Amino acid sequence: MHFKIRPSRKEDCKEISRMIMELAVYEKMPDQVKISHEELERDGFCQNPFFECLIAEVPEEHKSKEGFTVVGYALYFYTYSTWNGRSLYLEDLYVMPEFRGHGIGKSLLSKVAEVGKEKQCVRLQLSVLNWNTPSLDFYAAKGGQDLTVAEGWHLIRFDEQNMGRLASETPKDQ
Amino acid sequence: MHFKIRPSRKEDCKEISRMIMELAVYEKMPDQVKISHEELERDGFCQNPFFECLIAEVPEEHKSKEGFTVVGYALYFYTYSTWNGRSLYLEDLYVMPEFRGHGIGKSLLSKVAEVGKEKQCVRLQLSVLNWNTPSLDFYAAKGGQDLTVAEGWHLIRFDEQNMGRLASETPKDQ
Repeated sequence: MHFKIRPSRKEDCKEISRMIMELAVYEKMPDQVKISHEELERDGFCQNPFFECLIAEVPEEHKSKEGFTVVGYALYFYTYSTWNGRSLYLEDLYVMPEFRGHGIGKSLLSKVAEVGKEKQCVRLQLSVLNWNTPSLDFYAAKGGQDLTVAEGWHLIRFDEQNMGRLASETPKDQ
Repeated sequence: MHFKIRPSRKEDCKEISRMIMELAVYEKMPDQVKISHEELERDGFCQNPFFECLIAEVPEEHKSKEGFTVVGYALYFYTYSTWNGRSLYLEDLYVMPEFRGHGIGKSLLSKVAEVGKEKQCVRLQLSVLNWNTPSLDFYAAKGGQDLTVAEGWHLIRFDEQNMGRLASETPKDQ
């Protein structure tokens, strides 16, 4: 199947938003999606964007049964390692189920890695849920190392409420 | 002990670089530090900086036995959740051993949370090694949730070599 990978444009945000929800359903946490396409437009297409996004598009004749031609996306941003420098973090990689098996996911991932090289990043990181064996296998087969297993890294989160509480504890004289 | 938290300046990068190495020694991976203060200057003080950093400073009369007045730092950057939006990621939080127990680490963390609130971030995240019980306890006591335990998130890394290999696999027509 012919497809094209290209940087997303502001007008793609509705499609990205739709696929974010589809991915969350697959990850069994659809209730956690609180973002709108307006927020994606604001945060991804401002002067210092919070993220960048590639999308996969198929020609009109291969559109999905619902009529979609944007069938996958990879959303990433720049992070920083104080040991190694510039890094890239892949937040989401998604291909609609009926378009899997054509190398679209692999192409999206390769393109993200290409961006990383161009921007002199020294690595590409991402997170996967431990029950998501297909994804764990996919990344492992491509050379991704599970750092939680290998080195014992755990991800810690302060949610909005706890972050707010922390912020309110700043000493008055600081 | 009196101390002050302030945003870092370009000329603080040598001190930040020294403390990055001290922290890596504590984390038992000093060989992994490949970064120089020149790279920190380039990446943290450009037009679209890859990170921001707060430092903790004590007055001259409280300087360390080696003569340092910059005694701690918190280095963070902006990330993005496709479920919730803007997020803050705390890469490093460090206070020199002889200055611990005075609330400097807590103040650095609070200040980072304050930045997160100001920038409309919905959460603050970080990673901790599973054997680092003091840090795990410190963050848990302040409301941080261990997402690796709670939800099963694993961190996956493609190192420079594997990222390069991925990049070279981009189909020619993309």
